[in-house]
Amino acid sequence: MTPPPEPGRAEGSALERFAARLIAQRAYLAEAARLIAAIPGPVLEIGLGKGRTYDHLRRILPGRAIYCFDREHHAPPEESPPSEFLVLGEIQETLPALARRLGATAALAHCDIGTRKPARDMAFARYLAETLPGVMAEGGIVLGDRPMESNRLAPLPAPGYTRPEGIAAWPYYLYRVTPFA
Amino acid sequence: MTPPPEPGRAEGSALERFAARLIAQRAYLAEAARLIAAIPGPVLEIGLGKGRTYDHLRRILPGRAIYCFDREHHAPPEESPPSEFLVLGEIQETLPALARRLGATAALAHCDIGTRKPARDMAFARYLAETLPGVMAEGGIVLGDRPMESNRLAPLPAPGYTRPEGIAAWPYYLYRVTPFA
Repeated sequence: MTPPPEPGRAEGSALERFAARLIAQRAYLAEAARLIAAIPGPVLEIGLGKGRTYDHLRRILPGRAIYCFDREHHAPPEESPPSEFLVLGEIQETLPALARRLGATAALAHCDIGTRKPARDMAFARYLAETLPGVMAEGGIVLGDRPMESNRLAPLPAPGYTRPEGIAAWPYYLYRVTPFA
Repeated sequence: MTPPPEPGRAEGSALERFAARLIAQRAYLAEAARLIAAIPGPVLEIGLGKGRTYDHLRRILPGRAIYCFDREHHAPPEESPPSEFLVLGEIQETLPALARRLGATAALAHCDIGTRKPARDMAFARYLAETLPGVMAEGGIVLGDRPMESNRLAPLPAPGYTRPEGIAAWPYYLYRVTPFA
């Protein structure tokens, strides 16, 4: 048996792995949107990057406030949020500051964690697992490309989706925010 | 009837358009690899970028020399060619220089032209359409994300491929290099 891919890795060429990631992301985001349909509240896009996921989120979740976090702003204007929803700086400062302003109200957090530095990614995932539940509404959804461990994050099953032949499954992690144990 | 997408554009979010592009690229590259099976000669990867397509090309065309052109080197080491196949600088200088060295021998040229600047892209596509046939073996294949017009480039039909529901077709252009008319 082939071992499962490392988090954020899958079989194939870099082109195929990127396609795998985007197709998985789209399926998991659709599932997350479905899961928060009855939960009001803003969306946190953690890692705006080039704004591709932001552009997708605003289409599948029209009418939601989408706060986009990044260290620096690299997205083109067409795929950037209005400036009041762009939160730039170190997440360890900007996320608690937004939480103080909004309270524990977010319905969805999407976390693009994976880089080529696994140790840094794990530390960031640990930080988010600790911090996000305090920012989010009960029943809210956390979706990320790295596993997040917290007694307030209950893992949910992966959605089914079709992949083109030769495109592998890409690991994503879906959690529901639960009350304090 | 919906008009066909502009070259390089398709329906959907930025995430869906990128997925559409990668899935189309993979299908057209497979077709190109099939079409050059009996044609020896190197491959020209015009626009190394992050090296995703290079990584794919070296897997589907093992044993071929793959020359990768770019203005600057931005690809990570894992997705970069050996230095003797990395051709940096202005393509208007580097491509004719390589042609003088190799002769008209290339079996495949893959051209990643599309940027967000359509006028510049069109000028670049015109340059490649004029220049590439002189660098390539007869019967060689030119594949690009912009149309290229030349009496030495005969358009070939698009390959069939499966797309996940909701992912549009992405325009790619496939040509066979023909002798002088």
